[in-house]
Amino acid sequence: MSAFPPPVSLGLDFGTESARAVLIDTAGCELGIGSEHYQHGQILDALPGSNVRLPDRYALQSPGDWIRSAATATRQAIAASGIDVSRIVGIGVDFTSCTMLPTLRDSTPLCEIDTFARVALAWPKLWKHHGAIEQTDRMNDVAKQRNESFLHRYGGTIGLEWFFPKLLETIENAPEVADAAEVWLEAGDWFVWKLVGCDADRLPRSTCQAGYKALWSPEEGYASPDYLSAVHPKLAEAARSKMPGVMLSPGERAGSLSAEMAERFGLPAGIAVSAATIDAHAAVPGVGAGEAGTMVMVMGTSSCHMLNSEQGKSVAGVAGIVEGGILPGLFGYETGQAAVGDAFAWLLKLLNLDSFERLSRDAMALPPGAEGVLCLDWMNGCRTPLMDGKVKGAFTGLSLGTTPAHLYRALLEGSAFGVRWIVDVLRESSVPVEKFVATGGLPHHNPDLVQVYADVLGAPIEIHPSEQGPAVGAAVLGMVAAGQDKSGFADVTEASKAMAAVPDDRKRVIRPAMDYHDAYQVHYKRYRKLAEQLS
Amino acid sequence: MSAFPPPVSLGLDFGTESARAVLIDTAGCELGIGSEHYQHGQILDALPGSNVRLPDRYALQSPGDWIRSAATATRQAIAASGIDVSRIVGIGVDFTSCTMLPTLRDSTPLCEIDTFARVALAWPKLWKHHGAIEQTDRMNDVAKQRNESFLHRYGGTIGLEWFFPKLLETIENAPEVADAAEVWLEAGDWFVWKLVGCDADRLPRSTCQAGYKALWSPEEGYASPDYLSAVHPKLAEAARSKMPGVMLSPGERAGSLSAEMAERFGLPAGIAVSAATIDAHAAVPGVGAGEAGTMVMVMGTSSCHMLNSEQGKSVAGVAGIVEGGILPGLFGYETGQAAVGDAFAWLLKLLNLDSFERLSRDAMALPPGAEGVLCLDWMNGCRTPLMDGKVKGAFTGLSLGTTPAHLYRALLEGSAFGVRWIVDVLRESSVPVEKFVATGGLPHHNPDLVQVYADVLGAPIEIHPSEQGPAVGAAVLGMVAAGQDKSGFADVTEASKAMAAVPDDRKRVIRPAMDYHDAYQVHYKRYRKLAEQLS
Repeated sequence: MSAFPPPVSLGLDFGTESARAVLIDTAGCELGIGSEHYQHGQILDALPGSNVRLPDRYALQSPGDWIRSAATATRQAIAASGIDVSRIVGIGVDFTSCTMLPTLRDSTPLCEIDTFARVALAWPKLWKHHGAIEQTDRMNDVAKQRNESFLHRYGGTIGLEWFFPKLLETIENAPEVADAAEVWLEAGDWFVWKLVGCDADRLPRSTCQAGYKALWSPEEGYASPDYLSAVHPKLAEAARSKMPGVMLSPGERAGSLSAEMAERFGLPAGIAVSAATIDAHAAVPGVGAGEAGTMVMVMGTSSCHMLNSEQGKSVAGVAGIVEGGILPGLFGYETGQAAVGDAFAWLLKLLNLDSFERLSRDAMALPPGAEGVLCLDWMNGCRTPLMDGKVKGAFTGLSLGTTPAHLYRALLEGSAFGVRWIVDVLRESSVPVEKFVATGGLPHHNPDLVQVYADVLGAPIEIHPSEQGPAVGAAVLGMVAAGQDKSGFADVTEASKAMAAVPDDRKRVIRPAMDYHDAYQVHYKRYRKLAEQLS
Repeated sequence: MSAFPPPVSLGLDFGTESARAVLIDTAGCELGIGSEHYQHGQILDALPGSNVRLPDRYALQSPGDWIRSAATATRQAIAASGIDVSRIVGIGVDFTSCTMLPTLRDSTPLCEIDTFARVALAWPKLWKHHGAIEQTDRMNDVAKQRNESFLHRYGGTIGLEWFFPKLLETIENAPEVADAAEVWLEAGDWFVWKLVGCDADRLPRSTCQAGYKALWSPEEGYASPDYLSAVHPKLAEAARSKMPGVMLSPGERAGSLSAEMAERFGLPAGIAVSAATIDAHAAVPGVGAGEAGTMVMVMGTSSCHMLNSEQGKSVAGVAGIVEGGILPGLFGYETGQAAVGDAFAWLLKLLNLDSFERLSRDAMALPPGAEGVLCLDWMNGCRTPLMDGKVKGAFTGLSLGTTPAHLYRALLEGSAFGVRWIVDVLRESSVPVEKFVATGGLPHHNPDLVQVYADVLGAPIEIHPSEQGPAVGAAVLGMVAAGQDKSGFADVTEASKAMAAVPDDRKRVIRPAMDYHDAYQVHYKRYRKLAEQLS
């Protein structure tokens, strides 16, 4: 294949605050990008168009925002690229997850119906919506009592942010919404459904979202009706009759772009649309890391560390292990840290400082171990390996000589110890972790952090040059969905190498200082001891 | 007795940075005060008059500073009072402790001899000088091996800041100084010796300093020669031949003011001089707390909590239990917290703030327990009950919502939990603690802290109106030393009531909010658990 000009794919990346669009060709050339904030952002205080106040822990979004922002971002990217849109052959979509909503069978979100516009639980629940604490506890209790087979794929724990707890929350707290709902689905799947415009029985559901967030596996399907009934009869009923569709892997063709949406986005009708994927998971093809054993560290306000492996092992505390969940033919392991960029922003504000510049210089001049100051980086709970949103952060080793720089260095180190703990847990379960690639906005803004990670891990870390890893990954998936006759690529791994990998001579690699690595061994042990004491 | 005008006593209070003088009459009228900084302050970096650099952990003072500052402060007080100096009948002296020095038998400090002016360990070691870590460990090891009887009076541990470790440090690290030394003594005793100008064999040594800092008791004297020899033969030799003098309780007459010193200070020659006392201990008579069961909280950069009791009990972790150590006829218990005002100043600086005002207002608006943020107040180690200078402080329970006000409130509460722990330890050993009086500068500058203490203790706390508690206490001792025929007082308790107690109608009492007290029970348990985990 050497079509000229080369075919182009559109990657759409739906984040917490905005949608981003990137156009990229088969040679990996980034032709144009666009970005647009959601009109209503995160809906945290009151519902749009009414004065209905939301409880703490609620975090909602508006489906109309997704369409409007994506269309605007896409038109920006097209304008920036200057290309003829006829070159665009596919669309890939990545989305935050589990962001989910109830709709009618014609895809209309319940929150867009007058009857439910003022009912909070009719709106899409954003991934960080934490209204289902009680429901999550109950689902875990019942699953453990029944020793459910799916538990080993999730490190033994169902997460507060996942699909079924959020569904159960609505069943219990807004039964009129649950009764009116005809379809429950992930926001990413809803968006793809809207793009292709098919009927509900053929709506394309992503194995990635289902596998990581909805207790689904290729062998067993969703959690069993017996289990769901034991939790709540209406939960089993919803899974049976209100979750229609076909399961597709990211990169599989979900359908063709409808004429209506083509017009709205300024794209050619009929081009391929890939099944959706989770944003962090899209970063793996997005940085060209198609092989097993490479940990892709997607570092932002929080971090997801994604890893593919030849084998599926049960690893305590790993958020999800899904066959084909990230890339076809490999077991995808999702691990993460709940506060990274967020924690640094918090510390800066706590210390009444405006900039990291001086803080960073002073902190990096301190020796490894921050002169005894130790930080437990759980300011937003601990994802891997504890899967516990209720644990809290700490600083210990404080003396009258402790300065802001000590706290900052301790936080850098605590974050790095958190990564090392995740790597240790994987390796202890015989899951190989051989290479590290950092992506997301944070590594570019905070190279000190990547240096401390490298020192603590004792391994080099490649910083991927694109800050748009997930969007690039989505574009890779869109290109693959267009088919080998259009793209020339047999599979995601091949497309990812061609479109997203960085040539060796252009790689930016942060190398570890091995004397620092040696010094960190003892501090890492102290971190683990503190984690044990305070969890 | 109703002499008119009533007789007056001079209290001299030697702190870490300055000397203060207060003139007070038998009716408790404060007639004049004066204050003068030491010319060389704390000597931390280099010796005066030379470029000899000091190691970390060293903290020295200059004897000439003590005389000069005290004379200036006394003349200021006299001028401010406008009284006829012939009314002054006695002088009392309180001093930081253990601040100690080597001299010749004629009272000349070794550091004032040319041979030794450039040798750091010939200078007075200030209480906070921490050069004797190794020596302290060794003295503790040998004492524990031999099960020395004095240990039960000191909570089982000899402190790093005490007399014999400091003496041993010089023996081992500056043997030429140790060999030349003819007399080793506390700075407070040296100053009284200078005032009365007697020969070395009659030099007045305070039972307070000796009891709390030099392993001395009325029954057993100093630590036994066998023990001291087992530590170092020269230590036993020094105790035997280089510590001459007579033991006197605070308030006992050490001698009469010499003509030379009378002229220097502008005082009548021949007036009574009391044996010295420790500054924090002087605060007990200084606030009129002559009875058993009242805890006098002397709150400053660090805090000493002094208590008298009818009985001497062995209490684990109490810094010292000395019969007649604070007041004649009672057992004096010294406990303390190593960082109080210091810790608040540190937090303010850490948070890049200039004033406590807003911080305090925001913190006091938070509920008890600081929304889960917990502080271990060990930024300068833990005095009571752990007697461990190496433990460090901590903040736990941190989240992305944690603000400076949370940290500040947690520190207020942590400090209060530290006091409650001390009170619990005493009560668990059947030592009654019935009333609380706060003195020192801090309660006046930070009434929030006293409120949180009252809430956590569930007891009212009286704030004594004078910020000069120790100096007033010294004046009480000077008055008693003048004798009943001059003062009209039979003993320290009587003089203290008359000269320092506050009439009920003028008392400022901070009362506890008992609902807060109830709420604090669970947070105090969390503090104790954290203390156990991190010690």
